[in-house]
Amino acid sequence: MKLAVIGLGLIGMSIVRAYAALGEEAQLYDLDPAVRDRVRTFRIGTVFNDAAAAAEGADLVILCTPPAAMAKAAQALAPGLKAGAILSDVGSVKQAVITAVAPHVPESVFFVPAHPVAGTERSGPDAGFATLFQDRWLLITPLDDPRPDYPHAVDRLARFWESLGAMVETMAPDRHDLVLAVTSHLPHLIAFNIVAMAEDYEKVTESEAVKFSAGGFRDFTRIAASDPTMWRDVFLNNKDALLEILGRFTEDLFALQRAIRWGDGEKIYETIARARRMRREVIEAGQDSAAPNWGRDKS
Amino acid sequence: MKLAVIGLGLIGMSIVRAYAALGEEAQLYDLDPAVRDRVRTFRIGTVFNDAAAAAEGADLVILCTPPAAMAKAAQALAPGLKAGAILSDVGSVKQAVITAVAPHVPESVFFVPAHPVAGTERSGPDAGFATLFQDRWLLITPLDDPRPDYPHAVDRLARFWESLGAMVETMAPDRHDLVLAVTSHLPHLIAFNIVAMAEDYEKVTESEAVKFSAGGFRDFTRIAASDPTMWRDVFLNNKDALLEILGRFTEDLFALQRAIRWGDGEKIYETIARARRMRREVIEAGQDSAAPNWGRDKS
Repeated sequence: MKLAVIGLGLIGMSIVRAYAALGEEAQLYDLDPAVRDRVRTFRIGTVFNDAAAAAEGADLVILCTPPAAMAKAAQALAPGLKAGAILSDVGSVKQAVITAVAPHVPESVFFVPAHPVAGTERSGPDAGFATLFQDRWLLITPLDDPRPDYPHAVDRLARFWESLGAMVETMAPDRHDLVLAVTSHLPHLIAFNIVAMAEDYEKVTESEAVKFSAGGFRDFTRIAASDPTMWRDVFLNNKDALLEILGRFTEDLFALQRAIRWGDGEKIYETIARARRMRREVIEAGQDSAAPNWGRDKS
Repeated sequence: MKLAVIGLGLIGMSIVRAYAALGEEAQLYDLDPAVRDRVRTFRIGTVFNDAAAAAEGADLVILCTPPAAMAKAAQALAPGLKAGAILSDVGSVKQAVITAVAPHVPESVFFVPAHPVAGTERSGPDAGFATLFQDRWLLITPLDDPRPDYPHAVDRLARFWESLGAMVETMAPDRHDLVLAVTSHLPHLIAFNIVAMAEDYEKVTESEAVKFSAGGFRDFTRIAASDPTMWRDVFLNNKDALLEILGRFTEDLFALQRAIRWGDGEKIYETIARARRMRREVIEAGQDSAAPNWGRDKS
């Protein structure tokens, strides 16, 4: 399978490296000439100066740009797409990406949107690593494409991601956007908000917040270190699901705040105990390290 | 220095183990007979069945119970305290603990409240480990005690914690409670709230939230796995600072929410970029691991 990767940041370069670990080379492109030059020094895959040239002859082309840049990227590479090729993406939002990209997909091409639920706080071409997708979920959100070969294209994309170590599941695009609003977009939004708040809170200095961050705050700073362009795009492109879940979050927060104000220890305890139970499930599902503090300390 | 530790959970047993690593033995007590029995099997220190007996003859007695249990513990051990002893604690809130404990402290004893800014999501006697306080901050919040020997007691407590690997700083109790509301109490409250919300959100199943937690949610489940009794006490006992900081958090969240609703990408980007900068400071201050995902993944 001839692979082309468009957008060479954390996710794109992790795909390239995971594919290279299987002994396979990919055709690469990034809009930023500095990124292309950097990736050339890695001596992994062939870097093209033109999106269409990178996509040429590929069986699978994966868009790995920030969500808002995907339509332009698809438009630019479309002339290079061969008949029967699969065009996919890795966007953290699916409905908005489908709406933006679909008009640029040639009729002879299968557009199969997808999203690997994996990442780190790092961004840029140096952040990629081959094992990022190991034991992580890859969600495919197939289109309503009536062509008899479309399910086969979905299958081929699933096999590709499984070869990189991922577990694959299919989901409707709107369902994806709702579930990810809960498990990814809201946590990031909250982390950005709490860290930015601490940064400009006039009663506690920034250096105090940093110094005594081991009490919990430092965990939020890690998530909040994620790429601003990509997350701005995610928030703007999953607006409806995010605003809905934010409403619920705030409602619950006010209930908890009220319990604190009125000294309702039982309600507070019940909330904490309920939250605590979910940790065990995350560990049992193999989605996190069971080591205290993830083993990041010297213990 | 003869040490007594009252309350044998994560923090208490970490003190005991760090002290043991220096070749020193402590006198131990816990209100729960099952915990006492468990700690006896560790063959580390001497476990007493009575708080006053455990405190007897000690130069330093450290209260390591949940904040709301400290007054009763102080009352119970007071008869065992020798003249000139230091009574300290590890409570995550300081003003409330001081108000509750001070009335039970004999006149001949020096009460020096303190708080190690360190911990993991684990609780109970098995959770303790010797290096928990290594390179972490220990905050001493001295009383307005006019006795000429009081500063000397503060010094001795500081030296004790430094011997366990901690860095020591003194702070006024109300300042402590405000700073920790930002760096510890609010992050925990938010994590409990978001995880409990996901647990009972009817549109996304619990198993979906768990399965796709690698997008950010799993980090919140770690913090939310912390001890419910201890955190209930912290929230109830640092009410004023917490309600004040919650007000600011919600105000900023609404501003961000509004930016998402109206598509103000610049405001969103600015918030994220500001949050991102703090991560570097936390790493530079030696308060967190610089490895992506804290190195918890297989990368």
